[in-house]
Amino acid sequence: MASHFQETHFDRAKHVFHSPEFEEIIKDTIRFFNGTPVHKLPPPERFSGTGVYALYYIGKNVYYTSLYNQNRLAFAQPIYVGKAVPRGWRQSKNAAEGVSSNSELYNRLKDHTKSIDAAKNLLLEDFFCRFMILEGGDASLIATVEAALIRMFKPVWNSCLDGFGNHTPGAGRFNQAKSDWDVLHPGRNWAEKCTGMHNSKEDIVAQISKYLNND
Amino acid sequence: MASHFQETHFDRAKHVFHSPEFEEIIKDTIRFFNGTPVHKLPPPERFSGTGVYALYYIGKNVYYTSLYNQNRLAFAQPIYVGKAVPRGWRQSKNAAEGVSSNSELYNRLKDHTKSIDAAKNLLLEDFFCRFMILEGGDASLIATVEAALIRMFKPVWNSCLDGFGNHTPGAGRFNQAKSDWDVLHPGRNWAEKCTGMHNSKEDIVAQISKYLNND
Repeated sequence: MASHFQETHFDRAKHVFHSPEFEEIIKDTIRFFNGTPVHKLPPPERFSGTGVYALYYIGKNVYYTSLYNQNRLAFAQPIYVGKAVPRGWRQSKNAAEGVSSNSELYNRLKDHTKSIDAAKNLLLEDFFCRFMILEGGDASLIATVEAALIRMFKPVWNSCLDGFGNHTPGAGRFNQAKSDWDVLHPGRNWAEKCTGMHNSKEDIVAQISKYLNND
Repeated sequence: MASHFQETHFDRAKHVFHSPEFEEIIKDTIRFFNGTPVHKLPPPERFSGTGVYALYYIGKNVYYTSLYNQNRLAFAQPIYVGKAVPRGWRQSKNAAEGVSSNSELYNRLKDHTKSIDAAKNLLLEDFFCRFMILEGGDASLIATVEAALIRMFKPVWNSCLDGFGNHTPGAGRFNQAKSDWDVLHPGRNWAEKCTGMHNSKEDIVAQISKYLNND
């Protein structure tokens, strides 16, 4: 394609972008997030919007004793951080840019409510949530803020125990293994149908114990 | 948990965050991106870093005639936009925050090179790439910039034809269907092993034709 100009010389520096202002914005969003009202799980009413949320566990389950202690005086250490993005966001298959009349964030919190309610060794009343709505152009911040919160808090259900946010496997996919979360917190119907070889509960408990004490 | 304060009253407005500065930063990143040097695929040398990239197709394949025309005078319309994030980024399993000594971005472009090279009806020499390195704290921008570029350009391999960015299915997963991309551009070895019922080539060609002409 001789008619198209392209570089033959390679200069890495020409490809590096840095934004000092961006760091400040992320700090603003995190401070805002940490100041949002805490609600029970699920929140008391359905609301519209997409965004980022954190779940807090203030219960007596021995796996999470350190969380109980960390959260004695404030909602300081989430057990899980997640996001709800506008439908079709990634593939840009919806016409409206970041606008959504749906309740993605609320629905996600309801899904989590069901998972926790199904778990035999967790009590829903021990769970609380915080959430930040990001809509319109600000919806582009969702993934970034979620990643920043996960890096900041390293919540045990994100960074150590996999599977809480999973959905029912698709048709013909039940040959996969039950997730670590489902091994530790049995109850979700669909998880019990997974036939793959999963990790042992003893190994998972040891892993979490090590993770939470060292953190 | 009476000892923990939480809101019983619900006020949506307390959860909504808006950042006018953020929109400006995203525009800055996109302008920077659109000004980065264009290289052949793969770029002439291995480089370190994570970030965002676009692929441009300037070839004679009849499926993409409109792209050929749009790109006559400039690299104006990518066929695909993607990202390479630091390893363990999402789960925050790596200690170093957004720092990476690996070549994630370069490796991703090499993977794409292999996919295109394997396709029987695409020529590697017709492909060009543009990329922006985002590292350190700026790595948090990667997902946001990728999403913004996809929404801006709606590249046909992101927004219409699924499967280009796929990897080899895991063990026991070959019962899934070949992706639309693999139906249209046969050649990748692992795709030919997928045994599920895939969409017909005629339907996919019709869909792309409609998509590119209407856009």
